[in-house]
Amino acid sequence: MRLALGISYNGQAYEGWQSQLSGRTVQDNLERALTAFAAQRISTVCAGRTDAGVHGLMQVVHFDTDLQREEFSWTRGTNRFLPADIAVQWARPVPDSFHSRASALARRYSYVVLESPVRPSVDAGRVGWVFRPLDIDAMREAAAALVGKHDYTSFRASACQALSPVKTMARIDISRRGAYWRFDFEADAFLHHMIRNIMGCMLVIGQGLKPAGWMQEVLQARDRDAAAPTFSPDGLYFVGPVYGPEWNLPQRTPAYDGLP
Amino acid sequence: MRLALGISYNGQAYEGWQSQLSGRTVQDNLERALTAFAAQRISTVCAGRTDAGVHGLMQVVHFDTDLQREEFSWTRGTNRFLPADIAVQWARPVPDSFHSRASALARRYSYVVLESPVRPSVDAGRVGWVFRPLDIDAMREAAAALVGKHDYTSFRASACQALSPVKTMARIDISRRGAYWRFDFEADAFLHHMIRNIMGCMLVIGQGLKPAGWMQEVLQARDRDAAAPTFSPDGLYFVGPVYGPEWNLPQRTPAYDGLP
Repeated sequence: MRLALGISYNGQAYEGWQSQLSGRTVQDNLERALTAFAAQRISTVCAGRTDAGVHGLMQVVHFDTDLQREEFSWTRGTNRFLPADIAVQWARPVPDSFHSRASALARRYSYVVLESPVRPSVDAGRVGWVFRPLDIDAMREAAAALVGKHDYTSFRASACQALSPVKTMARIDISRRGAYWRFDFEADAFLHHMIRNIMGCMLVIGQGLKPAGWMQEVLQARDRDAAAPTFSPDGLYFVGPVYGPEWNLPQRTPAYDGLP
Repeated sequence: MRLALGISYNGQAYEGWQSQLSGRTVQDNLERALTAFAAQRISTVCAGRTDAGVHGLMQVVHFDTDLQREEFSWTRGTNRFLPADIAVQWARPVPDSFHSRASALARRYSYVVLESPVRPSVDAGRVGWVFRPLDIDAMREAAAALVGKHDYTSFRASACQALSPVKTMARIDISRRGAYWRFDFEADAFLHHMIRNIMGCMLVIGQGLKPAGWMQEVLQARDRDAAAPTFSPDGLYFVGPVYGPEWNLPQRTPAYDGLP
């Protein structure tokens, strides 16, 4: 039987999603908890790896098991073995044809930035930070240049393992709530560090250090050196993968409503 | 010269506001940083102590010093010596007649609760939690019974040092944003554990375990044993004191906009 789980986590304490020898990743903690609950070794495949310090509102994993339990039992039972900053949100049986990564039609990420003369404190590790005021019109113009099907080589980390740098960005929405800015991204897939590299450029433009048209130049350069440095992981949230309605999986988790 | 500072902090890592022998409180960290920056011993008086685990959006302190520095210099210089989860937001010279506690006309607190079948994870330590749906009408009726001038003995911790249990609650506003509930309190002053004890009763009523009229009964009993257990500090934020316009101090900090 194949099961899909939705997982929320605060990434501050972890070395990213992907299992490491250190054992200090979100996947390591999840698999230890699942293995403890199921009393059998369980290995998971995720929808999208996240970097160290990046948060997950709805990571999705799948795995195969012959253990029969109620859905709420998988959720509650596994959560008993997880640290306070990681929690299974839901568990659903899925057909064997479901694959958390391959079945995802798109991925959503949000980046939250605090605009303030003073660095974050109450939400340190949960938000990025700029101390200069941001120009929403310039950033929206820059974002528009990234929407559509493009070669995103300029925003790709050298360690990226994707087969192709060509992805399709469905939307980049920018909004603010007082001192907090929110950048919502949706694409079919993202390259390694792609959002953090885009955010680096976006905030250079938002602060008026480069004109809005610079984003288009960076994109067309297809050269990582053309872009700004990779921005902090602190404010980045993997909102979750998007699956077709045929899988009947939850679209999001309650933690989504808690973003500024 | 007397200075007032506005401070924001995440209380998760600290043993409350008030200085302790352990040195692991917010006040201890602030005074160490001020003393390091000013190169002279600085002791502060705060507007309102917070419990272990309670957060501060705008704590206000005052102290006297003969050191002459620009306002931004006090802010930036002190922040350099503070941990990532505490930050001075502003510094202002004030008349010697200003007193952070005595000059406060009122205090504001907010409590954030996640309503979800699953415990918090992304925001563990930053929100309270209930797994049963809350009834807004019942809670608003209960809140109305608490507004006005009352003897709040039923919601007072035994360790409370206040001279009188009679306080005036100006308002309790209840709102929600998806799975996140927010309770905004304003009173002339609060007794020790008063909001956490009120929240304990409020959530008992919100979950339908007691009728809305029970809040009035608890209030009139003037007996701590009549109320529900003290609720978790995790979702409690000291929004800040309210001062008269004559002091010309900031009303709030950017972190306020980051509450769900």
